[in-house]
Amino acid sequence: MSWLARVHVVLKPVVNDPQGLAIFGGLQSLGFRGVQQVRAGKYFEITLDADNAEEALQRVEDMCRKLLANPVIEDYRLDIDEAQQQIADAV
Amino acid sequence: MSWLARVHVVLKPVVNDPQGLAIFGGLQSLGFRGVQQVRAGKYFEITLDADNAEEALQRVEDMCRKLLANPVIEDYRLDIDEAQQQIADAV
Repeated sequence: MSWLARVHVVLKPVVNDPQGLAIFGGLQSLGFRGVQQVRAGKYFEITLDADNAEEALQRVEDMCRKLLANPVIEDYRLDIDEAQQQIADAV
Repeated sequence: MSWLARVHVVLKPVVNDPQGLAIFGGLQSLGFRGVQQVRAGKYFEITLDADNAEEALQRVEDMCRKLLANPVIEDYRLDIDEAQQQIADAV
């Protein structure tokens, strides 16, 4: 069975975010007023096979710890859904 | 009033995603089996002032078109919520 994991990786709130600050500056230059803060993060969509949602969740959490996120400075959160169609079918 | 916009910017499905492919390769090397596809995108959290949710939404859509996303190769989606606390209060 095929699952779609949506993973958000964001810097911990106490960590400085130069990319967010650069975007903030860019928005100011473009004339956008009233922006208080911009935080930049990463977003991944991972399609994977697993017997059930529990197993898919555990596997993707493992991926986050080992590759996708740096636990020292980043937090991650993820949700799992049934994939709408098998990617393999489309190939 | 203060609003939190969560913005997802992802490559259009037909666009090649070298970052996603690199992560896919990394997961294979680490021994993760059953991964079908990885797509990498960006995620922004923008806190801004606006009179109402409509206005906040319009303003952030404008930011997406002008700065955050490249409409030729990227899609974006966003949702708006009331910000839990004014960033300015914490400063």
